[in-house]
Amino acid sequence: MKKIINDPADFVDEMIEGILLAHPDKVKTPGDDPRILVRADAPVAGKVGIVTGGGSGHLPLFKGYVGQGLCSGVAIGNVFSSPSSQQCFEATKAVDGGAGVLYLYGNYGGDVFNFDLAADLAELEDIETRTVLGRDDVASQPNERKLDRRGVAGIFFAYKAAGAASERGDNLDEVAAVAEDVVEHTATMGIGLAPTILPTTGALSFDLPDGEMEIGIGIHGEPGIHRGPLEPADKITERLVGALVEDLGLVDGDRVAVLVNSMGATPLEELYVMYRRVHQLLAEIGVSIERKYIGEYATSLEMAGASISLLKLDDARLALLDAPAVSPFFQEV
Amino acid sequence: MKKIINDPADFVDEMIEGILLAHPDKVKTPGDDPRILVRADAPVAGKVGIVTGGGSGHLPLFKGYVGQGLCSGVAIGNVFSSPSSQQCFEATKAVDGGAGVLYLYGNYGGDVFNFDLAADLAELEDIETRTVLGRDDVASQPNERKLDRRGVAGIFFAYKAAGAASERGDNLDEVAAVAEDVVEHTATMGIGLAPTILPTTGALSFDLPDGEMEIGIGIHGEPGIHRGPLEPADKITERLVGALVEDLGLVDGDRVAVLVNSMGATPLEELYVMYRRVHQLLAEIGVSIERKYIGEYATSLEMAGASISLLKLDDARLALLDAPAVSPFFQEV
Repeated sequence: MKKIINDPADFVDEMIEGILLAHPDKVKTPGDDPRILVRADAPVAGKVGIVTGGGSGHLPLFKGYVGQGLCSGVAIGNVFSSPSSQQCFEATKAVDGGAGVLYLYGNYGGDVFNFDLAADLAELEDIETRTVLGRDDVASQPNERKLDRRGVAGIFFAYKAAGAASERGDNLDEVAAVAEDVVEHTATMGIGLAPTILPTTGALSFDLPDGEMEIGIGIHGEPGIHRGPLEPADKITERLVGALVEDLGLVDGDRVAVLVNSMGATPLEELYVMYRRVHQLLAEIGVSIERKYIGEYATSLEMAGASISLLKLDDARLALLDAPAVSPFFQEV
Repeated sequence: MKKIINDPADFVDEMIEGILLAHPDKVKTPGDDPRILVRADAPVAGKVGIVTGGGSGHLPLFKGYVGQGLCSGVAIGNVFSSPSSQQCFEATKAVDGGAGVLYLYGNYGGDVFNFDLAADLAELEDIETRTVLGRDDVASQPNERKLDRRGVAGIFFAYKAAGAASERGDNLDEVAAVAEDVVEHTATMGIGLAPTILPTTGALSFDLPDGEMEIGIGIHGEPGIHRGPLEPADKITERLVGALVEDLGLVDGDRVAVLVNSMGATPLEELYVMYRRVHQLLAEIGVSIERKYIGEYATSLEMAGASISLLKLDDARLALLDAPAVSPFFQEV
């Protein structure tokens, strides 16, 4: 156990308490339950609300993306565990400004179950909802089954675009369409080098011998597509970028946004070594990088590993990425 | 070895290549040596240049703080190793806009030696320099020997303030005085839980048995003031904040800026658990937190650990912290 925590049972609530103490100008809890966090100015009248959620342990995902130009609210569970349907519903009510609420979260069974129940509860109170699932992990399912893919770091792009669409006054169907369009054009693949220690039990989140890597690993340690001896950064990056380029069908002249994401322990230095190779590989095939995001965007506590996400751009998606956004963890100005 | 790297000998240069490919709008190398990085618009005529530097492996320190309202240039060495005097000198020439150059870096023997030599070389070319050393690590020396302290994460405050002073047109002595004033009122203490693996050798950066912690550890694993079984987050935070409050002589009514910094592997979640206790402890003694910075500001690759820095504020320091700043790794708007 190499963790700066108190009683493991208090980990999530103490972390949230810290966020609320640090950022009272940006976020608040709408009621008594600290697991529900919304924009400080929620609900925003006439604007579509956006609710996300999932397990704790992925900061800045999910709590970090609540703010202007991003999500309106979030419901979170214990580490790597879904929030309850009641929590999702409470978040929905707290952000509803009369224009309906988009549920935008990663494709995991528990989250889908609870958000779907929340949608039923919302309907009883005449709050209209739509659901768009982040499903960008190309290693989790082949392209022909892409609707079943897990959601990982690439959901950042969908938050950014949907948040911008809401801010400019798009209606619920339009915001949902923007999110769906971005998800459709986003692909991510990760690599894991070492697991996370789960705070509650002290157990490892997955098993991976020292000196090995797993290509395509999920952010909870879900199995990938290749396990073997750790390879050089360039070779790893070629594997990841190759899969993403193929999945998105990128060709000469295409434009992308790139997200090189640390899953926790992997330092910025290594992300830049990877970015260097991403840049070279895309340049070789004539794909231009219009925007880049390099750092911790979706982690798994202190897991060692990284992921690369590509969003295929058109002018509309690029404009939405560039729209202003402010949260405790992300700023676009 | 749990690292995404190529040949360890290429680690630093490939990382820099990635930074240059990612951020050509913000930074550039002035000559042939990629270890020297300056603002894209350097030199800025009539403004005081600020050069920092030190070993690699601490991102966003040092390379991340080159930009508008921050440092003008940086010279970096291999992992945890000083840049050469020639590199410091080249950085000096590249940022000199005719108003002189401040050297602002952490108090480590190798860095002092090489920057002092660079100052001599600069003098021969009629570039006036001043030197201010970051020396905020209260665990490294007692208060009565504070001039001998090591520099750690708290130098961020000095970068921010000195960079703002340069932007507003302060002369060399004034910018140096601003930096010195901030260093004088900054105190930091860290805790280490697990070492870094050095990329060149695969060796651990320091030795610490699993389940133990070292209070007061330096960012290269330098010995601290207490080693023992890992304690709860609240107890650790009390140790750190208690030492900082005493060192700065903080009393009821004082105002501070707080920096809770991950040394690499320690996740944001744990930083917020710590911040929560920092807030409580300072509130108890009537010290108000005016600004807070929580994240990775000065790391040691994937070391597990964290540090807390306090800057005692007055109106002048607060205004400098709030001035605009933009670098590839930091944004204040």
